[in-house]
Amino acid sequence: MQKVRVASFSISLDGFGAGPDQSIDNPLGIGGENLHQWFFPTKTFQQNVLGKSTGTTGIDNKFAENGFKNIGAWILGRNMFSPYRGLPNIEWKGWWGDNPPYHVPVFILTNHKRESFEMEGGTVFHFVTNGIHAALEHALEAANGMDVRIGGGVSTIRQYLQAGLIDELHIAISPVFLGKGEHLFNGLNMHSLGYDCAEHKPGDKATHIILKKDKQ
Amino acid sequence: MQKVRVASFSISLDGFGAGPDQSIDNPLGIGGENLHQWFFPTKTFQQNVLGKSTGTTGIDNKFAENGFKNIGAWILGRNMFSPYRGLPNIEWKGWWGDNPPYHVPVFILTNHKRESFEMEGGTVFHFVTNGIHAALEHALEAANGMDVRIGGGVSTIRQYLQAGLIDELHIAISPVFLGKGEHLFNGLNMHSLGYDCAEHKPGDKATHIILKKDKQ
Repeated sequence: MQKVRVASFSISLDGFGAGPDQSIDNPLGIGGENLHQWFFPTKTFQQNVLGKSTGTTGIDNKFAENGFKNIGAWILGRNMFSPYRGLPNIEWKGWWGDNPPYHVPVFILTNHKRESFEMEGGTVFHFVTNGIHAALEHALEAANGMDVRIGGGVSTIRQYLQAGLIDELHIAISPVFLGKGEHLFNGLNMHSLGYDCAEHKPGDKATHIILKKDKQ
Repeated sequence: MQKVRVASFSISLDGFGAGPDQSIDNPLGIGGENLHQWFFPTKTFQQNVLGKSTGTTGIDNKFAENGFKNIGAWILGRNMFSPYRGLPNIEWKGWWGDNPPYHVPVFILTNHKRESFEMEGGTVFHFVTNGIHAALEHALEAANGMDVRIGGGVSTIRQYLQAGLIDELHIAISPVFLGKGEHLFNGLNMHSLGYDCAEHKPGDKATHIILKKDKQ
């Protein structure tokens, strides 16, 4: 069955999924890169993102790898795509260079229309201006039976959680404090929203949890 | 060196250290007992609290056991001691029966004066009405060189964190959601307060983290 998934989304011990003050120099917010220390050394990151052939192959990598399996489309919030606010800078083609690590259609939530464009390696960026439900419909269709991965950021995931549209989340809890930033769970009642922890597994550099939505 | 410690304090995946609506039937708040599923099976809990001779002896137990080592006095918030608000019910002698699992002086933060009294097994309850600093002074003196353990609850720990008075915390992150309740870290900037994660260890039923305060 086609699923809507969040995967490899990292939060701090104090629950933040990104640091404050995102900018072109700090795409993950200040201190945000500390959340991902479990991910960077993995073979999955080293291969898929950096094009290298090395990397760790333990539990952290297993979770990272699963996050890319059977993904037919992605959805990203506008801040995951760009540091610019307001009208789009049409020179900007994402953080990832000419060959982004998606290789499938990517739907970006935004208030500003922009033409779709294709990158090397099969990634096509689409800009959706009519809301999270429309974006998900497009993504599910484009994924053609495969899963849709909601990449983030925090605000995007929270919106989809509140709408009850996410089937499964893999969250990595990193052993760091951010102190401030964007909090993933604050004010959300995950229990009432139907989510429970289905798996709880320690990796070398983070604790991995799998949250699943009860089927009503 | 004499330390001020928090130990075996459990929080949910969404960061709550107690459920909402504490009462005589729900001493840990609604759902709060789910936080402690890692603790109940341990040999430490089974022996120290229930007086049994069985129990698990793995990593969860190692952390539970450390929490009782070298403790010369405890500090508890009034809600840890009693479900009653306002004037004390002097019939009430705590949740723990005639022989509480402390066996040392216990200082309870409250706004209402009450005479100290002694229980079986060496526990003496003292009631401190002049604030957290005074309670800590009393406890450090009573501990006579051993450590002081701040038992909780959330509000008490937060006050001592904000005052910079805790040297070390062992927090157990349990794989459950509470959805609401008392949040341990919300609005506290642990990083700015000088705390870092010194250890990060998975147990069978919780992830254990040790937070230490940088010595300035």
